[in-house]
Amino acid sequence: MSVRAGIVVTGTEVLTGRVRDLNGPWLADRLLELGVELAHITQCGDRADDLTAQLVFLAGQQVDLIITSGGLGPTADDLTVATVAQFYGRELVLDTGLEQRIADILRRLTAGRQGVDFDAVLAANRKQAMVPVGAQILEPVGTAPGVVLHSEHLPTVVVLPGPPRELQPMWATAVATDGVQQAIAGRTEYRQQTVRMFGLPESGLAETLRDAQSQITGFDRLEITTCLRRGELEIVTRYEPEAADSYTALVDLLRERHPRELFSEDGTLVDDQVAGLLAGRTIATAESCTAGLLAARLADRAGSSAYLAGGVVSYSNDAKIELLGVDGALIAQHGAVSEPVARAMAEGALARFGADTAVGITGIAGPGGGTAEKPVGTVCFGVAVAGRDTVVRTLRLPGDRSDVRERSTTVAMHLLRQELGRP
Amino acid sequence: MSVRAGIVVTGTEVLTGRVRDLNGPWLADRLLELGVELAHITQCGDRADDLTAQLVFLAGQQVDLIITSGGLGPTADDLTVATVAQFYGRELVLDTGLEQRIADILRRLTAGRQGVDFDAVLAANRKQAMVPVGAQILEPVGTAPGVVLHSEHLPTVVVLPGPPRELQPMWATAVATDGVQQAIAGRTEYRQQTVRMFGLPESGLAETLRDAQSQITGFDRLEITTCLRRGELEIVTRYEPEAADSYTALVDLLRERHPRELFSEDGTLVDDQVAGLLAGRTIATAESCTAGLLAARLADRAGSSAYLAGGVVSYSNDAKIELLGVDGALIAQHGAVSEPVARAMAEGALARFGADTAVGITGIAGPGGGTAEKPVGTVCFGVAVAGRDTVVRTLRLPGDRSDVRERSTTVAMHLLRQELGRP
Repeated sequence: MSVRAGIVVTGTEVLTGRVRDLNGPWLADRLLELGVELAHITQCGDRADDLTAQLVFLAGQQVDLIITSGGLGPTADDLTVATVAQFYGRELVLDTGLEQRIADILRRLTAGRQGVDFDAVLAANRKQAMVPVGAQILEPVGTAPGVVLHSEHLPTVVVLPGPPRELQPMWATAVATDGVQQAIAGRTEYRQQTVRMFGLPESGLAETLRDAQSQITGFDRLEITTCLRRGELEIVTRYEPEAADSYTALVDLLRERHPRELFSEDGTLVDDQVAGLLAGRTIATAESCTAGLLAARLADRAGSSAYLAGGVVSYSNDAKIELLGVDGALIAQHGAVSEPVARAMAEGALARFGADTAVGITGIAGPGGGTAEKPVGTVCFGVAVAGRDTVVRTLRLPGDRSDVRERSTTVAMHLLRQELGRP
Repeated sequence: MSVRAGIVVTGTEVLTGRVRDLNGPWLADRLLELGVELAHITQCGDRADDLTAQLVFLAGQQVDLIITSGGLGPTADDLTVATVAQFYGRELVLDTGLEQRIADILRRLTAGRQGVDFDAVLAANRKQAMVPVGAQILEPVGTAPGVVLHSEHLPTVVVLPGPPRELQPMWATAVATDGVQQAIAGRTEYRQQTVRMFGLPESGLAETLRDAQSQITGFDRLEITTCLRRGELEIVTRYEPEAADSYTALVDLLRERHPRELFSEDGTLVDDQVAGLLAGRTIATAESCTAGLLAARLADRAGSSAYLAGGVVSYSNDAKIELLGVDGALIAQHGAVSEPVARAMAEGALARFGADTAVGITGIAGPGGGTAEKPVGTVCFGVAVAGRDTVVRTLRLPGDRSDVRERSTTVAMHLLRQELGRP
């Protein structure tokens, strides 16, 4: 038997996209770890009718657990506790002990501030001490307490505040309550693993998965989701421990069919792999169309100064000639977007920075600048490694200016991975 | 009468938080602009039952319009069109013209690639040409077509693909269809305008808004949302046309109180303004902690090659000395993160690229490298303009490594705006 849950994210600022919701994804991860299946996330504004409708909807979907975030503040538009209480058929009562504890917190918070009318603050916050009859209280981390409501006839509801730094510790407390433990008692344990591929179209993966369906025993017990991101395919599989053999068979098939494209069986990113391969090395970049995106991506992780020497953004031809030592005649003969120039840029960066590894990128990101021979999306790459022949590649990348530039950095990362990874 | 809408975001990768949903917030903004009230956003995984339940829920909430995103790919877990068709009681039929157009797109995409079994690609994508009877087709921007379904008895449903660069242009097409126009016919007209400020704390704005409330007639008819983003304050105001005078009074007050901080009254970004100021100029960058982010940001917009010469990412001290001509003694005396070095970097970039405008950035992005005197977040900037004294600034920026690097580029853009904008 599997346990299902729903998450309700409240707040007009979240619904309208002014504030990005961090609680839905965070709670989704926690549920996954617990082995609870997340069926629905719903978002609504600060309106009681819409919130009630979402609670009724989730209860009708037979979820065992509902978690709400937001709407616990002192102002009039904070109405989650009252709305959940009404949904549960429970009255609100003042918890005087809780009121006192909130007052203590507020006294500490406002201590030393001038112009604070403490009685007005207390009056506004009295509302936060009104709790549904029979609810389990979750002590406030900020000033807002949460509650857990449990009954035989309705899903257990956990009411949490909106600020992530309050919600996260209070969730840990909530999980330990009887109400939540009873709701999740029947949960299944799941494993989740991620495989990553590069250079395979989604339709090619779809074909392999169709074959997997007919060839692999227990394939239907694998819950597979695929996602195309930054030019890479991410394949996430969730399964019960008994289906481990089917998962192994799936990875074997993917490796057998797509040995060049499969680059990560343990979920590591190409950035992780390149960072590992660069240990003990020094890298420099020479970028035209990406204009610094590759250098910035290499510098993303802390500690990258151990291997990143620097780079040149050579947007103009003069910059390619002056700063990277590219021969002007090469540009005149082949054009700035060409394999000879990509090679010369990489080798120029290698020399100028005294590095042992370098990447050159020159391309047409668009929207202008394309020709019949070199349309928008044409990008040339050079990877120079000291003591080896420089490798060059030309690709035609899809999408708009921003896509072409971002994909180019991903391609460069994979060329680096391949080149540094070979013996 | 107000028109209400719901958004359904599908995809296990979004529900589980592995991929951040960008479509919900983007569509929320578009609905706001249209004057349509967004009541609910729901998210579900790639399961037909859960998707159906959400459609039934929204229809029961009497929304006039439902927009779905995601689940239009060629793989078996992409089931939005079939599920929506069933909800609408419409059969799926193969649209052979559409199939042909998708085939043409795929032929272009796979042209020149080796090892592609084109028939298999076509078979996988045939599914995408199966459309509900009577649906209005939205031509694919990628390979997935969208559909609009309209009837008298159900909300109009717009089915859009998940990738934002496909969804966004297709939404514009969808809005123009009869189905959507009929659904939103009864909406209230709103205006929405944006003001941007830089360098003002949120609490300072809150104080001004409190004064505005007591001073401005009709202030309550302005629906104001404020958002702190990339170190800038964005103030978005929505109002009915009759409240235009109140809005004008608000902007007057903001300008009067915060003349230095208010930099955009028409919603233009600092990037737009800097691009305008750079017309006829040539700019170069010298970046340490931002490692190419500023150059990449300057190159974001099409046509930037007219003024962007290039840049140097001088991550190591050697690179600062060799490529930018920074005096090694200066680094030894003041440290790499210092105003003299930021000045030398900017002036070095000016000279090396033959530019008339240059920016130098050197800072401590963290998590390591901070000292008591120069903690993590300390960033020094130099702005060199030919024929003027170079301007230097040191700021202490909040946040983690990624925040510090991104904020630094924003600060650099504002320093450029101020320096190029003064007479």
